Amino acid sequence: MLFENISILADDFTVKHGQYVGVKADKIAYIGSERPTEDFGETYNGKGKLLMPGMVNAHSHAPMTLLRGYGENLSLQRWLNERIFPFEDKLSDAAVAPATRLAIAEMLRFGTVSFTDMYFFSQTMADAILESGIKCNLSRGLTVFDDSDYEQTAAYKDNCDLLARYQNAGDGRLKIDLCIHGEYTTTPKMVEAVAKHAKQVDARVHIHLSETQSEHEECKARHGMTPAAYFEKLGLFDQPTTAAHCVWLDDSDFAILERRGVTVASCPVSNMKLASGFARVPEMLKRGIHVALGTDSVASNNNLNLFKEMFLFANVYKGATHDPTVVTPAEALAAATVNGMRSQGRDDSGLVRVGMKADLAVLNVDEPWMVPVNDWTTNLVYSAQGSDVCLTMVDGKVLYQDGEYKTIDIEKVKFEAQRATDAIRAQL
Amino acid sequence: MLFENISILADDFTVKHGQYVGVKADKIAYIGSERPTEDFGETYNGKGKLLMPGMVNAHSHAPMTLLRGYGENLSLQRWLNERIFPFEDKLSDAAVAPATRLAIAEMLRFGTVSFTDMYFFSQTMADAILESGIKCNLSRGLTVFDDSDYEQTAAYKDNCDLLARYQNAGDGRLKIDLCIHGEYTTTPKMVEAVAKHAKQVDARVHIHLSETQSEHEECKARHGMTPAAYFEKLGLFDQPTTAAHCVWLDDSDFAILERRGVTVASCPVSNMKLASGFARVPEMLKRGIHVALGTDSVASNNNLNLFKEMFLFANVYKGATHDPTVVTPAEALAAATVNGMRSQGRDDSGLVRVGMKADLAVLNVDEPWMVPVNDWTTNLVYSAQGSDVCLTMVDGKVLYQDGEYKTIDIEKVKFEAQRATDAIRAQL
Repeated sequence: MLFENISILADDFTVKHGQYVGVKADKIAYIGSERPTEDFGETYNGKGKLLMPGMVNAHSHAPMTLLRGYGENLSLQRWLNERIFPFEDKLSDAAVAPATRLAIAEMLRFGTVSFTDMYFFSQTMADAILESGIKCNLSRGLTVFDDSDYEQTAAYKDNCDLLARYQNAGDGRLKIDLCIHGEYTTTPKMVEAVAKHAKQVDARVHIHLSETQSEHEECKARHGMTPAAYFEKLGLFDQPTTAAHCVWLDDSDFAILERRGVTVASCPVSNMKLASGFARVPEMLKRGIHVALGTDSVASNNNLNLFKEMFLFANVYKGATHDPTVVTPAEALAAATVNGMRSQGRDDSGLVRVGMKADLAVLNVDEPWMVPVNDWTTNLVYSAQGSDVCLTMVDGKVLYQDGEYKTIDIEKVKFEAQRATDAIRAQL
Repeated sequence: MLFENISILADDFTVKHGQYVGVKADKIAYIGSERPTEDFGETYNGKGKLLMPGMVNAHSHAPMTLLRGYGENLSLQRWLNERIFPFEDKLSDAAVAPATRLAIAEMLRFGTVSFTDMYFFSQTMADAILESGIKCNLSRGLTVFDDSDYEQTAAYKDNCDLLARYQNAGDGRLKIDLCIHGEYTTTPKMVEAVAKHAKQVDARVHIHLSETQSEHEECKARHGMTPAAYFEKLGLFDQPTTAAHCVWLDDSDFAILERRGVTVASCPVSNMKLASGFARVPEMLKRGIHVALGTDSVASNNNLNLFKEMFLFANVYKGATHDPTVVTPAEALAAATVNGMRSQGRDDSGLVRVGMKADLAVLNVDEPWMVPVNDWTTNLVYSAQGSDVCLTMVDGKVLYQDGEYKTIDIEKVKFEAQRATDAIRAQL
């Protein structure tokens, strides 16, 4: 495909106009202000459009779309015990399949090209992911409260199966990560075993870290160290790790994340909605810690819209620190795109640059709320709506365009997702 | 118009399905699950649609659309002195006309049917407002730093002209309020004079109140009382008042707002972006203080999208108070709709109820991000996008539908707004 005469978000996060962008197979093969001589096939009229790297959702639990709006305005304990856990207890592969497809549809609609997910029913999820064409780093949730050996758990068997069957499937679009749910839901023995497994198979790791104050403080009481120090000591950070939330980090934790290159998947909406607190994102950015952006699940968001998340990311820490100069538009855009790709081990994507994978979103920028333009980058972060996305492309393939989902039967998925939800709630 | 077989947000903030809603002239004349016998003219197929009260923007500065994205990540003083004030100094009627039309277009697009605005160039604004068909409570900004008599100021003359020429113009769609910009930008003498004027002509009042900590504390140092106490003492609250922001209220101020029926126009996005702080909204709601929602200007938002504002309103105070149970979906919906209407003295609008003015928004709710439905009200607050609005009606007239602005030449307005912005910036 050749994008003709289009504005692009260049790899320095400035916007260039009147560009031609040629996509060949799965890669960006040409960028320039001159029409290329090479034939790239289908042409796309870029008038009033802007091409940018697709968004990356660095922390999600995709099948929880079914819990959209189920359990609001409750304390964390009531929310978990009265709503989330009983509902999840009734989930099945039959429910997780449409739930995952629905999540992917919403992500594609709002320009997301890749996501990092932690959940169960992983083979069903993997099949839905591959079928859709989106990219994903998928990990199978792991919580253990007893003295089990990792190799004796269902999780170990699942992880081995997933790694054997799906690692780098779909031309590398699907990657399998290993998971520790969190410090408070595992044992030191289990963390060490998973760390060892991750090293053996060279897998990345996905965890929750210091999301709530009680989780953070209880770890310190239990182990005499913070969750970050605990995981580091047990070897988990020897492999590249994505740590979701990181709201309650101690000062000493920053140095750990920094030296181990851990990516923080910041989830500003979820942290507000569940009243977890405001992460110290400006300090993280100042120190050069990798920060990417995640939605967390629909149950605590209630969307999978990275534009909404990016808007919040660029605003909420100004409010929380009483400093309007923190978090620049370029930092917000980087968090939502290239930093997410990097956290997934996808150094070949996340920027509009020749040789990079064609994982792209096209926005309609000829809308009243994008006028006037005083600064393009700022308009993208503060004024663009997720719904301005009119095309989402992964590995050079158009997966969403102008209301049409190319790989998802959206009417069927909506129907099946509602039916599965109703069936579960009828049992509660 | 007859909306056929449509879902409605009923006046108790629950959603009812399969309804027929008949609009006759400017009012809702019929609501029921049976098709009415009366002929309401044109029919609207409500399949997959939801009808709700239009949104009310209770605090804006519409012409500041031209400053969209101009001046980001600056301290408040640098933002004002290096960006906002110099730009505003170059504004003219020729610039304010397209700027106001652009603001109205964005508001209509996202389902807003009425707004409360404070700015200058008021006759030009009034003409643009009347022409568009939207509702507005308009006030002319007033700042005075010397010993002037109110009757000797340009503001007094403007207010008299506005009241004479525009009060209740457009069948009452346009109302003229009086304004005191804020305690720190006026004198006690001026506040008393405006309070007296407002009483004489029975006008409502629009002010900024305790937006920043320094404004609040400096007033206490200067006058030995809070801004709210100061305004009450000078008689300003004898008329119905909309007080924007109210971030830094003292405990004693709550009682003042309560007993004087002052409406708080909460501006969650602006308060975050300018790092003003988090208003104590949950306490206000608990006390029964009227709380409505405003965007503030595009310069500190950078949208005029009440759905974004409502989403924040329902989330951010959970984060700020560490309590996920505060601000219910119904409270958020009321703040964005009927509370705003009430703050404008429009008790005849803001609910889907027979006899009320037909100030309505229709949303497309058959979208992946609105599925599944576990709770309709929650989905409206947490999952709906402003762009889901497909029809906006004011006084029974369709002003926006499916991408078309019925009273605004949108291409011309976008062109003129950009040209006016470029012309101003060329002078800076």
